[in-house]
Amino acid sequence: MHKFKQLANNIQFLIESESWPAHKKLPSLREQAQSSGYSVMTVLNAYQELEAKGWIYTKQKSGYYVSEAISHVSKTSNKLALNTNIEINSLVFDHLKHLQKEHVIPLGSAFPSASLLCNTYFMKTLSRHAKIPNSALSTDSMPPGYLQLRQVIASRYSLNGISTNPEDLVITSGALDALNLALQALTKPGDFILLQQTIFYGAWQAAERLGLNVITIPEHYQYGFDLEAFENALKNYPIKACWLMLNVHNPIGFTVSNEIKSTIAALLQKYEVYLIEDDVYQELFYEKQKPLSVKYFDKGNYVLHCSSFSKILGAGIRGGWVNSGKFSNVIQHLQLMSTVSASNLMQHALADFMSSHHYEKHLRQLRLKLHQTKTAYYKLLQEILPIACEVYYYATGYFLWIKLPEGMDSSILYQCLLEKNIVIAPSILFQQDHLPSNYIRLNCSFELNDKVRRALQIMVGMIHDLVEGKVV
Amino acid sequence: MHKFKQLANNIQFLIESESWPAHKKLPSLREQAQSSGYSVMTVLNAYQELEAKGWIYTKQKSGYYVSEAISHVSKTSNKLALNTNIEINSLVFDHLKHLQKEHVIPLGSAFPSASLLCNTYFMKTLSRHAKIPNSALSTDSMPPGYLQLRQVIASRYSLNGISTNPEDLVITSGALDALNLALQALTKPGDFILLQQTIFYGAWQAAERLGLNVITIPEHYQYGFDLEAFENALKNYPIKACWLMLNVHNPIGFTVSNEIKSTIAALLQKYEVYLIEDDVYQELFYEKQKPLSVKYFDKGNYVLHCSSFSKILGAGIRGGWVNSGKFSNVIQHLQLMSTVSASNLMQHALADFMSSHHYEKHLRQLRLKLHQTKTAYYKLLQEILPIACEVYYYATGYFLWIKLPEGMDSSILYQCLLEKNIVIAPSILFQQDHLPSNYIRLNCSFELNDKVRRALQIMVGMIHDLVEGKVV
Repeated sequence: MHKFKQLANNIQFLIESESWPAHKKLPSLREQAQSSGYSVMTVLNAYQELEAKGWIYTKQKSGYYVSEAISHVSKTSNKLALNTNIEINSLVFDHLKHLQKEHVIPLGSAFPSASLLCNTYFMKTLSRHAKIPNSALSTDSMPPGYLQLRQVIASRYSLNGISTNPEDLVITSGALDALNLALQALTKPGDFILLQQTIFYGAWQAAERLGLNVITIPEHYQYGFDLEAFENALKNYPIKACWLMLNVHNPIGFTVSNEIKSTIAALLQKYEVYLIEDDVYQELFYEKQKPLSVKYFDKGNYVLHCSSFSKILGAGIRGGWVNSGKFSNVIQHLQLMSTVSASNLMQHALADFMSSHHYEKHLRQLRLKLHQTKTAYYKLLQEILPIACEVYYYATGYFLWIKLPEGMDSSILYQCLLEKNIVIAPSILFQQDHLPSNYIRLNCSFELNDKVRRALQIMVGMIHDLVEGKVV
Repeated sequence: MHKFKQLANNIQFLIESESWPAHKKLPSLREQAQSSGYSVMTVLNAYQELEAKGWIYTKQKSGYYVSEAISHVSKTSNKLALNTNIEINSLVFDHLKHLQKEHVIPLGSAFPSASLLCNTYFMKTLSRHAKIPNSALSTDSMPPGYLQLRQVIASRYSLNGISTNPEDLVITSGALDALNLALQALTKPGDFILLQQTIFYGAWQAAERLGLNVITIPEHYQYGFDLEAFENALKNYPIKACWLMLNVHNPIGFTVSNEIKSTIAALLQKYEVYLIEDDVYQELFYEKQKPLSVKYFDKGNYVLHCSSFSKILGAGIRGGWVNSGKFSNVIQHLQLMSTVSASNLMQHALADFMSSHHYEKHLRQLRLKLHQTKTAYYKLLQEILPIACEVYYYATGYFLWIKLPEGMDSSILYQCLLEKNIVIAPSILFQQDHLPSNYIRLNCSFELNDKVRRALQIMVGMIHDLVEGKVV
């Protein structure tokens, strides 16, 4: 081993073991050379190596400093095959399986109530297209997807101030497909990506499947997004891509301000890092203004914006898209060797439906109903939950993020409720397991009928029991 | 480096460079030790290392021998991201793009003519299901897929002598999704898999995407499948999985005999190797007997059998399945983190349609039409092709595999025909490039009208020109 590598390893160990804390100034080159017996050149090489790896950073004319451990670097396995490494995904898998059971109260589901999404006019459109010979089941809508659908989506972008060419869009088999394809297009195994500390589990799974190193940044207690941690991460780690949710964050629910989004866009350009923007809930806002996307502020084309129809018309559609700009071809390559294309029938029906006034009407009605239902859940929960709980309410989406009493493990609540046929989403589905686990996500899109009220009462009773130590 | 590794490397070099030919007996341990100065133990370790890697094999009490280079071991890149390694797939990508163009004559397409697949009764079924509220667009058919669909597919297996439990089946977004999921479930990067030397390009792409080493075996000139090469490969390489097409092989067209299939099943069990059986054309036979699958002979549960509706009802359906036995859970895991599920609407409509007599009726009519059309193409091509060409005709599927005059490069014919808006499939799409490239695959499912006749005449003219050196 080269001498400088040996020195670099030793210093890295000091940082990893936290003997050298964040922002500690490193010995100068000369000091380090004298104390260690290495040449100044060797010390310089070691420091440069550490800097390249993100362990230390420089300040102009002031020397080298230990990087902030923004969060621990999680080195995920680069094994693709789940058969040898199944445990990390088992929780999510079991969770999804529980939700499929009959008679279950699916408060842990990610999907809105099917009855709210169901639109008679869209179904008629679909039904009509299903009967068009040589069209419904053909492969006319191969990647990048049906031109007319891409045109109506591009127009909507443009109406939102994001000038978009239909050529930039690739239609995918749902948002997860879009996000996965984008991540695969931007990275290779061993690369670093940045995620929010609390995030949709699909991001963790994708990172593991593609063998990526994950850097996380914590949520900001007030603004949702911690710009300082973000810039530190971009500065100190060789990050290839970020995967962020800034509108109607899943599971927490916050939407970050336009100022923050604009700064994120500027930082992406400054550090030349790509962003995969997960914006699947963008249409589910209940106040006047539709929230902007980072894509809106993206002058340097660093944002790949992903969304879908799953949360507004039905997850069974399996239709989404990525606004991918210059990555369109790479993403189509990847698509043609995996899912091939989204359903032709759905693409035709969607293009037709989106071109009519029924689409906006559907969105308006959906927003109204979701808002009403979510508010009703919120009011009820505020009444019945123990005082030690906290409910995070935002006038967007259909999730409530609930803080359970300090020290409570939501996985235990989850397990107890499963026995009563009630499924909630514990925070461990969205975080790595070193974080406090006393949070749950509740899906508030289902009609708040007696059955659901009873389920919520059972949950509250269970929380009381757990507080009092009646359940182990 | 350990001494034995050094020795192993040296011997490997002799084999790779063909200084030591296949089946050459290696020096005995004692001879090798004496001549090299290494200890007998070191030599033994080196030989064992080489044997584990498949470079040499042992015969009981007779010593070590150089393995046959069944084909060259192609070490595919283990990079997932196509952005850094795009060239291998570019040909396939460009090919698929050419086929999408307007006014093209798609003789290189993999899909049967949409007009033949179009079934009025199925479309009515689909149209009816599209109007059922809370059903068409819901997520009721999450992995493993809609129970009733799995039940009708399982019954069809049982009728074909393959006793199948609906629990063994996973419904996927098409056959390629099924094949990819199966391969991912069985392997991890760096593993060895076995492919036929000439095979559907999706297999090559999947191997590259998953970072696998590929061993190929040549087609048998008479029986289609070379059992000896197959057993040699299983014996000499640490193969994790095979991906084979034995019914209506794409692109060549042959179907191997039941004796060979039965032996393949026995060898899989003997060497404990899994088979991914690509059987997407299983319903497209034109003589009395439906060909059996290797799955039929699979007593040890080593076969994952994959098929789809793309070739019988429309590729736009994006519906397939894998009969996966004990791998069902692993495959569902992988599915939930990629495509999530196949379309609910399609699954419901398919279950309904397959349960009616219309399904068998559709297959009967489809077979009749495809057989007629393929025979018409065959007759015409026999008349008009130069005598130096050879047409491989089998009474299955809708492809003709055509041998062009010796030494001709079908990629050049392909390029020339593109300029005339005619797309054929050159053999390089299905093989690695060290093999003779004077073959093409023609899709003979399109009505043989004047336009197609003209296109075939143009192709024949072009072949003549190429023979006479008129085109460079």
